[in-house]
Amino acid sequence: MGKEDVGITVSKKDDFSEWYTQVVLKAKLADYAPVKGLIVLRPDGYSIWESLRGTFDKKFSRNGIRNGFLPILIPESLLGKEQKHFAGFNPEVFWVTHSGTNEIGDRLALRPTSETLAYTMYAKWIQSWRDLPLKINFWNTALRAEIKATKPFLRTSEFLWQEGHTVHSTQEEAEKEVMKILDIYKNTVEEELAIPVTTGKKSEKEKFVGAVYTTTMESIMPDGKALQMGTSHFLGQNFSKPFEVKFADKDNVEHFAWQTSWGVSWRLIGAMIMAHGDDKGLVLPPKVAPMQVVIVPIYRNDEGKETVLPKVEEIKKELESKDIRVHVDEREGLSPGYKFNDWELKGVPLRIEIGPKDIEKNSIVVAKRYNLEKISLSCSEIEKIPTILDEIQVEMLKKAREDAKSNTLEISDYSDFKSKIEKGGFFNSPWCGKLECEEKIKEETGAEIRVIPFGSENTNQKCIYCQEQSIAVPIFARGY
Amino acid sequence: MGKEDVGITVSKKDDFSEWYTQVVLKAKLADYAPVKGLIVLRPDGYSIWESLRGTFDKKFSRNGIRNGFLPILIPESLLGKEQKHFAGFNPEVFWVTHSGTNEIGDRLALRPTSETLAYTMYAKWIQSWRDLPLKINFWNTALRAEIKATKPFLRTSEFLWQEGHTVHSTQEEAEKEVMKILDIYKNTVEEELAIPVTTGKKSEKEKFVGAVYTTTMESIMPDGKALQMGTSHFLGQNFSKPFEVKFADKDNVEHFAWQTSWGVSWRLIGAMIMAHGDDKGLVLPPKVAPMQVVIVPIYRNDEGKETVLPKVEEIKKELESKDIRVHVDEREGLSPGYKFNDWELKGVPLRIEIGPKDIEKNSIVVAKRYNLEKISLSCSEIEKIPTILDEIQVEMLKKAREDAKSNTLEISDYSDFKSKIEKGGFFNSPWCGKLECEEKIKEETGAEIRVIPFGSENTNQKCIYCQEQSIAVPIFARGY
Ligand SMILES: [Zn+2]
Ligand SMILES: [Zn+2]
Repeated sequence: MGKEDVGITVSKKDDFSEWYTQVVLKAKLADYAPVKGLIVLRPDGYSIWESLRGTFDKKFSRNGIRNGFLPILIPESLLGKEQKHFAGFNPEVFWVTHSGTNEIGDRLALRPTSETLAYTMYAKWIQSWRDLPLKINFWNTALRAEIKATKPFLRTSEFLWQEGHTVHSTQEEAEKEVMKILDIYKNTVEEELAIPVTTGKKSEKEKFVGAVYTTTMESIMPDGKALQMGTSHFLGQNFSKPFEVKFADKDNVEHFAWQTSWGVSWRLIGAMIMAHGDDKGLVLPPKVAPMQVVIVPIYRNDEGKETVLPKVEEIKKELESKDIRVHVDEREGLSPGYKFNDWELKGVPLRIEIGPKDIEKNSIVVAKRYNLEKISLSCSEIEKIPTILDEIQVEMLKKAREDAKSNTLEISDYSDFKSKIEKGGFFNSPWCGKLECEEKIKEETGAEIRVIPFGSENTNQKCIYCQEQSIAVPIFARGY
Repeated sequence: MGKEDVGITVSKKDDFSEWYTQVVLKAKLADYAPVKGLIVLRPDGYSIWESLRGTFDKKFSRNGIRNGFLPILIPESLLGKEQKHFAGFNPEVFWVTHSGTNEIGDRLALRPTSETLAYTMYAKWIQSWRDLPLKINFWNTALRAEIKATKPFLRTSEFLWQEGHTVHSTQEEAEKEVMKILDIYKNTVEEELAIPVTTGKKSEKEKFVGAVYTTTMESIMPDGKALQMGTSHFLGQNFSKPFEVKFADKDNVEHFAWQTSWGVSWRLIGAMIMAHGDDKGLVLPPKVAPMQVVIVPIYRNDEGKETVLPKVEEIKKELESKDIRVHVDEREGLSPGYKFNDWELKGVPLRIEIGPKDIEKNSIVVAKRYNLEKISLSCSEIEKIPTILDEIQVEMLKKAREDAKSNTLEISDYSDFKSKIEKGGFFNSPWCGKLECEEKIKEETGAEIRVIPFGSENTNQKCIYCQEQSIAVPIFARGY
């Protein structure tokens, strides 16, 4: 296997799409499954998902949310109970029609999302105010048939996600929950994945089918396209009415409950790859990196090996005692240069190089993946490594914020909008609130309202399309 | 809601099956989904699964096994690649035939197990000895259509499980892996769930379709029926040949690899319920209990409340600082008696009662769920609670071992076998090794060879059926 087979062969700038696919496959995060539209996660890819799941679980738990399990099969009759919702998902549903050689009467949908199933159960479980709030989260996969070309983590017919479903006795409490979750989403993505997000509401056109309104967090990717990073929906009583999710209040009067649902998917991993990767491959934020430090021992002969390996073992133990995830690359027959490229491709945040000369000087070489900087540390400074990892995490977010800022433009002239949209970016452009303008803009430019940021309400400008009075300054962009 | 609606209305002894179902539903572990054969896990049920998953993950990881993700859809053509394997699963496969309104050409199976998919991927990923061993585990669900009545955790058409798939360069290493996993299974079930298991091999008739041999762990349930608790299969080269899982050895010669696969499912939760539950409901082993200690404050008036609650808070904090999962039942308007029944039904290992009189005496009442014993502890002895929980865990396993022993019989006479099998139990009975005898015994008694225990080889006895020379003394039983 020559080096040329391993490395990324295109530049991120020249062919972003091909670069992305190569990084995913060559860093061994994921691979294509035999069925079109489906992917397999290899351990390094799944480990990032496990790390995110762990962080979310801690935060959900602190917020009184517990996990549960729902089966994947939903009867067609149940899925159709909320009409708008059903119409929204119907074209992309996978249908099970047979078990063994038997035909199934009421055919079964593979879960495109679980509102209908969860709320059928909730209606049985909730009787009185004592049973509320009910807050359950489900880690599973959803299935929605994709016709376009597969893009690992971004466009697949089955995807890993979590879907949370909460029930409340008052509208106020439910709406607060929607915002609490959006906040958990935002701080997790920014702190763990080092990706800045903009939060706000979706337009009526873009909201979740069945929701009263949808809040969202959106990020701008380096190619100028927007990525929806997670959504938190206020469902009002839109589902509690058809599904009869009712409770008897303290005065024994029956009310329909107020509901929320919310989710993030492995799309977040796709965003992380796009936001931080470079021409050498993946760049992992230290907090979610399966391996945070790799140590490459360097020696030419047995004597060198005997000098170097005990020191390597000592450093490994010291780092492990500080809860750093560390690996020693002891593979024989591969050059240090080959190993460096390999770990750079895989995005390990820090690489430590130790050879006989370093031992003599009682120092080590530490290479940072995210900016390719190399520093020399004396062996007594190894205790600084956790701090260095923390600094990298902060620096990566800072850099990603600058990238996002440079990709965000204030545009109030439509011809300016049309000419600049080809290059991509987040466009802050005033809008009158009318569906017609939103649709025309989408039709003529491919850009849609990704998010109406909180606080962007503004009645002092003119709609970029119709020139009427604006209601807000949403972010327009072409999306994934 | 009266007490009579909440408690278990049948005795475990009189109607084991109804008792089991009531415990599952009334302790709120699980509920029936709208589709026949499927269940939903409520947070208390799912939490036990999460606890087991956490323990297995730690042990798998120490053994070099990492987690991955496989999609749920497998093309029929791929599932059919290993013929015996396919024939074994075919009658119970759910088939996806449409996405939206489009018919799918090569129809898609919902994963009954993932050997065929995993090994298609492994064949791409493995080139040389450097890539071995490859050890990946998948936490997911498997789907196998059940026609008999649903039994939560025991007989459902979709079930949570893990499936591990490893690849090795030598037969010896693969066979060692099979045993390592079986050992992890055994010690986890015994230490976490307090259920004793017997390990050994399955007979040729009962082995996994496609395996060279299957190792298993079996337990005897209180109703005298056997439950398969987990299996670890040596696949030899049965899959590596059709799926071309090959590697170039150090000498550059290509070989087919040696493989294993292994799994446990949420059946373990079913076993735990059956093994430990009693007429008051669920009894949870402390290690897997979502809530280990519940504190019930007792007071009749505001004065009592003001005396009791600060002490309750103090004890709660002390227990939490010792990593005990503790909950305070502050529900208003419910009597202590109602609350006691409620927590007993839910199986919480320890209940602490504190009223104004206890405060006066500077003591608390501690009730153990598993034997319903009540003890009094002075407040300075609260630090003993973690030890008490550990003791309960040990005692529960000890008691379960005694139960299993009393349900195990040495039987070498076939008429004795036939008359006693009605009452159930594990029968150690000599066998000649012939399929014919095994089949006749099954046909005439409903009992099958559950496991040929390690070390049970024995050529000094006569087959219980044909009187020819025995090869071993397997365990015969009727099973779930
Ligand atoms: Zn307008
Ligand atoms: Zn015989």
